[in-house]
Amino acid sequence: MELNPIGTIHTPFTDPAGMPIQPAGAGGVKGTIEIFEKYRAGLKDLDGFSHVILLYHFHRSQGFNLQVVPFMDSETRGVFATRAPKRPNAIGFSIVHLERIENGTLHVQNVDILDGTPLFDIKPYVPEFDHQVDVRTGWLDRVGKTVTEKKADDRFK
Amino acid sequence: MELNPIGTIHTPFTDPAGMPIQPAGAGGVKGTIEIFEKYRAGLKDLDGFSHVILLYHFHRSQGFNLQVVPFMDSETRGVFATRAPKRPNAIGFSIVHLERIENGTLHVQNVDILDGTPLFDIKPYVPEFDHQVDVRTGWLDRVGKTVTEKKADDRFK
Repeated sequence: MELNPIGTIHTPFTDPAGMPIQPAGAGGVKGTIEIFEKYRAGLKDLDGFSHVILLYHFHRSQGFNLQVVPFMDSETRGVFATRAPKRPNAIGFSIVHLERIENGTLHVQNVDILDGTPLFDIKPYVPEFDHQVDVRTGWLDRVGKTVTEKKADDRFK
Repeated sequence: MELNPIGTIHTPFTDPAGMPIQPAGAGGVKGTIEIFEKYRAGLKDLDGFSHVILLYHFHRSQGFNLQVVPFMDSETRGVFATRAPKRPNAIGFSIVHLERIENGTLHVQNVDILDGTPLFDIKPYVPEFDHQVDVRTGWLDRVGKTVTEKKADDRFK
Protein backbone atom coordinates (compact mmCIF):
# COMPACT_ATOMS: atom_id res chain seq x y z
CA MET A 1 0.00 0.00 0.00
CA GLU A 2 1.27 3.45 -0.96
CA LEU A 3 0.68 6.45 1.35
CA ASN A 4 0.68 10.08 0.22
CA PRO A 5 0.96 12.95 2.71
CA ILE A 6 -2.12 15.16 3.15
CA GLY A 7 -0.13 17.89 4.90
CA THR A 8 2.95 18.86 6.92
CA ILE A 9 3.35 19.20 10.69
CA HIS A 10 5.33 22.21 11.98
CA THR A 11 6.70 22.15 15.53
CA PRO A 12 9.57 23.63 17.57
CA PHE A 13 11.49 20.30 17.42
CA THR A 14 14.16 20.15 14.72
CA ASP A 15 16.21 17.37 16.31
CA PRO A 16 15.00 14.10 17.90
CA ALA A 17 17.41 14.42 20.84
CA GLY A 18 15.77 16.26 23.74
CA MET A 19 12.21 15.97 22.41
CA PRO A 20 9.25 14.97 24.58
CA ILE A 21 8.47 11.29 24.03
CA GLN A 22 4.68 11.51 24.17
CA PRO A 23 2.01 14.23 23.91
CA ALA A 24 1.60 13.82 27.69
CA GLY A 25 5.20 15.03 28.02
CA ALA A 26 4.61 17.94 25.62
CA GLY A 27 2.00 19.87 27.62
CA GLY A 28 1.48 23.30 26.08
CA VAL A 29 3.90 22.79 23.18
CA LYS A 30 2.28 24.45 20.17
CA GLY A 31 2.45 23.43 16.54
CA THR A 32 0.64 23.98 13.27
CA ILE A 33 -0.46 21.52 10.63
CA GLU A 34 -0.73 22.74 7.07
CA ILE A 35 -3.22 20.66 5.10
CA PHE A 36 -2.58 20.65 1.35
CA GLU A 37 -5.24 22.54 -0.58
CA LYS A 38 -6.65 19.53 -2.41
CA TYR A 39 -7.58 17.85 0.90
CA ARG A 40 -9.02 20.84 2.78
CA ALA A 41 -12.66 20.05 1.99
CA GLY A 42 -12.19 17.04 4.29
CA LEU A 43 -11.68 19.34 7.31
CA LYS A 44 -15.36 20.36 7.44
CA ASP A 45 -16.81 19.88 10.98
CA LEU A 46 -13.41 18.96 12.46
CA ASP A 47 -13.30 22.21 14.46
CA GLY A 48 -16.04 20.85 16.74
CA PHE A 49 -13.57 18.34 18.19
CA SER A 50 -11.17 19.33 20.97
CA HIS A 51 -8.73 16.44 20.37
CA VAL A 52 -7.60 14.74 17.18
CA ILE A 53 -5.67 11.57 16.37
CA LEU A 54 -2.74 12.15 14.02
CA LEU A 55 -1.15 9.39 11.92
CA TYR A 56 2.16 10.49 10.46
CA HIS A 57 5.49 9.34 9.07
CA PHE A 58 8.48 8.81 11.38
CA HIS A 59 10.42 10.30 8.48
CA ARG A 60 13.79 10.56 10.22
CA SER A 61 13.93 6.88 11.22
CA GLN A 62 15.79 4.56 8.85
CA GLY A 63 15.04 0.84 8.80
CA PHE A 64 13.77 -0.98 11.87
CA ASN A 65 14.71 -3.25 14.76
CA LEU A 66 12.34 -5.90 16.08
CA GLN A 67 13.73 -5.51 19.60
CA VAL A 68 14.65 -2.16 21.11
CA VAL A 69 15.53 -0.51 24.40
CA PRO A 70 12.73 2.07 24.75
CA PHE A 71 13.33 5.54 26.21
CA MET A 72 11.45 4.60 29.37
CA ASP A 73 13.34 1.39 30.16
CA SER A 74 16.82 -0.11 30.30
CA GLU A 75 15.78 -3.55 29.01
CA THR A 76 15.19 -4.84 25.49
CA ARG A 77 11.52 -5.04 24.50
CA GLY A 78 9.70 -6.22 21.40
CA VAL A 79 9.11 -3.19 19.17
CA PHE A 80 5.33 -3.85 19.06
CA ALA A 81 5.28 -3.55 22.88
CA THR A 82 6.75 -0.02 22.55
CA ARG A 83 6.03 3.26 20.77
CA ALA A 84 9.57 3.44 19.35
CA PRO A 85 9.76 5.04 15.87
CA LYS A 86 12.00 2.45 14.17
CA ARG A 87 9.19 0.00 13.29
CA PRO A 88 8.49 -2.20 10.25
CA ASN A 89 5.89 0.38 9.12
CA ALA A 90 7.14 3.70 10.51
CA ILE A 91 3.75 5.25 11.30
CA GLY A 92 3.51 7.54 14.30
CA PHE A 93 0.36 8.04 16.38
CA SER A 94 -0.32 11.03 18.63
CA ILE A 95 -3.46 12.53 20.16
CA VAL A 96 -3.15 16.33 20.27
CA HIS A 97 -5.35 19.18 21.41
CA LEU A 98 -6.97 21.09 18.53
CA GLU A 99 -7.23 24.80 19.29
CA ARG A 100 -8.61 26.11 16.01
CA ILE A 101 -8.53 25.77 12.24
CA GLU A 102 -7.74 28.76 10.02
CA ASN A 103 -7.33 28.70 6.23
CA GLY A 104 -6.57 25.01 6.09
CA THR A 105 -4.09 25.18 8.99
CA LEU A 106 -4.73 23.38 12.26
CA HIS A 107 -3.37 25.05 15.40
CA VAL A 108 -2.60 22.30 17.90
CA GLN A 109 -1.11 21.83 21.38
CA ASN A 110 0.80 19.01 23.13
CA VAL A 111 2.80 18.01 20.05
CA ASP A 112 5.59 15.43 20.48
CA ILE A 113 6.37 15.42 16.76
CA LEU A 114 9.41 16.52 14.71
CA ASP A 115 9.20 19.65 12.56
CA GLY A 116 8.52 18.89 8.91
CA THR A 117 6.78 15.55 9.58
CA PRO A 118 4.51 14.33 6.73
CA LEU A 119 0.91 13.81 7.91
CA PHE A 120 -1.13 10.87 6.56
CA ASP A 121 -4.46 11.06 8.39
CA ILE A 122 -6.54 12.91 10.96
CA LYS A 123 -9.31 11.16 12.89
CA PRO A 124 -11.52 12.66 15.61
CA TYR A 125 -10.73 11.48 19.16
CA VAL A 126 -13.92 10.14 20.77
CA PRO A 127 -13.65 8.87 24.37
CA GLU A 128 -16.72 6.64 23.86
CA PHE A 129 -14.77 4.82 21.12
CA ASP A 130 -11.21 5.12 22.36
CA HIS A 131 -11.11 5.09 26.16
CA GLN A 132 -10.50 1.69 27.71
CA VAL A 133 -10.89 0.58 31.32
CA ASP A 134 -9.34 -2.26 33.36
CA VAL A 135 -6.08 -1.82 31.51
CA ARG A 136 -2.77 -3.61 32.15
CA THR A 137 0.36 -2.02 30.66
CA GLY A 138 3.02 -4.73 30.97
CA TRP A 139 6.62 -3.56 31.35
CA LEU A 140 5.42 0.05 31.74
CA ASP A 141 3.68 -0.91 34.98
CA ARG A 142 7.04 -1.96 36.36
CA VAL A 143 9.18 0.98 35.25
CA GLY A 144 6.58 3.59 36.18
CA LYS A 145 5.05 5.82 33.54
CA THR A 146 7.16 8.92 34.12
CA VAL A 147 6.61 10.15 30.60
CA THR A 148 6.47 13.80 31.56
CA GLU A 149 10.07 13.66 32.80
CA LYS A 150 11.71 11.61 30.04
CA LYS A 151 13.17 13.12 26.89
CA ALA A 152 14.19 11.44 23.66
CA ASP A 153 17.78 10.96 22.52
CA ASP A 154 19.14 9.97 19.13
CA ARG A 155 18.94 6.19 19.52
CA PHE A 156 16.20 5.78 16.87
CA LYS A 157 17.75 7.87 14.11
CA MET B 1 5.82 5.88 1.71
CA GLU B 2 5.28 2.19 1.08
CA LEU B 3 3.62 -0.03 3.72
CA ASN B 4 4.04 -3.79 3.94
CA PRO B 5 1.67 -5.95 6.02
CA ILE B 6 3.13 -7.58 9.14
CA GLY B 7 0.20 -9.97 9.48
CA THR B 8 -3.44 -10.76 8.71
CA ILE B 9 -6.53 -10.15 10.87
CA HIS B 10 -9.15 -12.92 10.98
CA THR B 11 -12.67 -12.10 12.19
CA PRO B 12 -16.26 -13.34 11.73
CA PHE B 13 -17.01 -10.40 9.36
CA THR B 14 -16.80 -11.29 5.67
CA ASP B 15 -19.01 -8.44 4.42
CA PRO B 16 -19.00 -4.75 5.48
CA ALA B 17 -22.81 -4.60 5.62
CA GLY B 18 -24.06 -5.41 9.13
CA MET B 19 -20.66 -5.04 10.83
CA PRO B 20 -20.16 -3.19 14.10
CA ILE B 21 -18.82 0.30 13.39
CA GLN B 22 -16.43 0.56 16.34
CA PRO B 23 -14.77 -1.81 18.83
CA ALA B 24 -17.23 -0.39 21.40
CA GLY B 25 -20.00 -1.88 19.25
CA ALA B 26 -18.21 -5.22 18.94
CA GLY B 27 -18.15 -6.25 22.60
CA GLY B 28 -17.10 -9.88 22.93
CA VAL B 29 -16.51 -10.42 19.19
CA LYS B 30 -13.40 -12.61 18.93
CA GLY B 31 -10.73 -12.59 16.27
CA THR B 32 -7.18 -13.75 15.70
CA ILE B 33 -4.23 -11.93 14.23
CA GLU B 34 -1.55 -14.01 12.52
CA ILE B 35 1.80 -12.22 12.60
CA PHE B 36 4.12 -13.24 9.79
CA GLU B 37 7.08 -15.25 11.01
CA LYS B 38 9.74 -12.67 10.14
CA TYR B 39 8.11 -10.09 12.45
CA ARG B 40 7.34 -12.32 15.46
CA ALA B 41 10.44 -11.35 17.44
CA GLY B 42 8.78 -7.90 17.76
CA LEU B 43 5.95 -9.40 19.85
CA LYS B 44 8.18 -9.92 22.92
CA ASP B 45 6.61 -8.39 26.08
CA LEU B 46 3.36 -7.51 24.27
CA ASP B 47 1.43 -10.11 26.27
CA GLY B 48 1.74 -7.88 29.36
CA PHE B 49 -0.67 -5.41 27.80
CA SER B 50 -4.44 -5.91 28.02
CA HIS B 51 -5.28 -3.57 25.11
CA VAL B 52 -3.49 -2.91 21.83
CA ILE B 53 -3.81 -0.31 19.09
CA LEU B 54 -4.09 -1.82 15.62
CA LEU B 55 -3.29 0.10 12.43
CA TYR B 56 -4.54 -1.72 9.34
CA HIS B 57 -5.61 -1.36 5.72
CA PHE B 58 -9.23 -0.61 4.83
CA HIS B 59 -8.56 -3.02 1.98
CA ARG B 60 -12.12 -3.22 0.64
CA SER B 61 -12.51 0.57 0.21
CA GLN B 62 -11.73 1.95 -3.24
CA GLY B 63 -10.76 5.61 -3.67
CA PHE B 64 -11.99 8.29 -1.28
CA ASN B 65 -14.48 11.08 -0.74
CA LEU B 66 -13.55 14.26 1.15
CA GLN B 67 -17.10 14.62 2.43
CA VAL B 68 -19.22 11.69 3.56
CA VAL B 69 -22.43 10.85 5.39
CA PRO B 70 -21.12 8.79 8.33
CA PHE B 71 -23.00 5.77 9.71
CA MET B 72 -23.95 7.71 12.83
CA ASP B 73 -25.41 10.76 11.10
CA SER B 74 -27.68 11.83 8.24
CA GLU B 75 -25.64 14.90 7.31
CA THR B 76 -22.53 15.32 5.21
CA ARG B 77 -19.31 15.69 7.23
CA GLY B 78 -15.67 16.25 6.33
CA VAL B 79 -14.00 12.84 6.15
CA PHE B 80 -11.32 13.88 8.70
CA ALA B 81 -14.13 14.57 11.20
CA THR B 82 -15.27 10.94 10.82
CA ARG B 83 -13.87 7.42 11.09
CA ALA B 84 -15.20 6.46 7.63
CA PRO B 85 -12.95 4.01 5.74
CA LYS B 86 -12.88 5.79 2.35
CA ARG B 87 -10.10 8.26 3.24
CA PRO B 88 -7.13 9.65 1.31
CA ASN B 89 -4.86 7.19 3.16
CA ALA B 90 -7.10 4.22 3.96
CA ILE B 91 -5.60 3.33 7.35
CA GLY B 92 -7.93 1.95 9.99
CA PHE B 93 -7.42 2.39 13.74
CA SER B 94 -8.97 0.18 16.43
CA ILE B 95 -8.17 -0.51 20.08
CA VAL B 96 -8.91 -4.14 20.89
CA HIS B 97 -8.63 -6.34 23.98
CA LEU B 98 -5.66 -8.73 23.86
CA GLU B 99 -6.48 -12.07 25.48
CA ARG B 100 -3.30 -13.99 24.79
CA ILE B 101 -0.53 -14.67 22.27
CA GLU B 102 0.22 -18.22 21.08
CA ASN B 103 2.75 -19.19 18.39
CA GLY B 104 2.78 -15.76 16.80
CA THR B 105 -1.02 -15.46 16.81
CA LEU B 106 -2.80 -12.79 18.87
CA HIS B 107 -6.19 -13.76 20.26
CA VAL B 108 -8.24 -10.56 20.56
CA GLN B 109 -11.73 -9.38 21.50
CA ASN B 110 -13.94 -6.45 20.47
CA VAL B 111 -12.91 -6.52 16.81
CA ASP B 112 -14.78 -4.27 14.36
CA ILE B 113 -12.56 -5.31 11.45
CA LEU B 114 -13.21 -7.25 8.23
CA ASP B 115 -11.86 -10.78 7.84
CA GLY B 116 -8.63 -10.91 5.84
CA THR B 117 -7.56 -7.33 6.70
CA PRO B 118 -3.82 -6.64 6.28
CA LEU B 119 -2.21 -5.40 9.53
CA PHE B 120 0.47 -2.71 9.43
CA ASP B 121 1.31 -2.03 13.08
CA ILE B 122 0.61 -2.89 16.69
CA LYS B 123 1.22 -0.39 19.51
CA PRO B 124 0.52 -0.87 23.21
CA TYR B 125 -2.47 1.09 24.54
CA VAL B 126 -1.38 3.17 27.56
CA PRO B 127 -4.06 5.29 29.28
CA GLU B 128 -1.37 7.65 30.65
CA PHE B 129 -0.45 8.47 27.03
CA ASP B 130 -3.78 8.08 25.27
CA HIS B 131 -6.61 9.08 27.57
CA GLN B 132 -7.79 12.68 27.20
CA VAL B 133 -10.05 14.71 29.46
CA ASP B 134 -12.26 17.79 28.86
CA VAL B 135 -13.12 16.50 25.42
CA ARG B 136 -15.59 17.98 22.91
CA THR B 137 -16.76 15.71 20.10
CA GLY B 138 -18.46 18.07 17.63
CA TRP B 139 -21.26 16.62 15.52
CA LEU B 140 -21.15 13.41 17.57
CA ASP B 141 -22.27 15.37 20.64
CA ARG B 142 -25.41 16.33 18.74
CA VAL B 143 -26.35 12.97 17.24
CA GLY B 144 -25.58 11.02 20.43
CA LYS B 145 -22.87 8.39 20.48
CA THR B 146 -25.06 5.30 20.08
CA VAL B 147 -22.24 3.30 18.59
CA THR B 148 -23.28 0.06 20.24
CA GLU B 149 -26.58 0.08 18.33
CA LYS B 150 -25.41 1.15 14.86
CA LYS B 151 -24.27 -1.29 12.18
CA ALA B 152 -22.36 -0.63 8.99
CA ASP B 153 -23.88 -0.89 5.52
CA ASP B 154 -22.14 -0.99 2.13
CA ARG B 155 -21.85 2.77 1.54
CA PHE B 156 -18.05 2.81 1.80
CA LYS B 157 -17.29 -0.09 -0.54
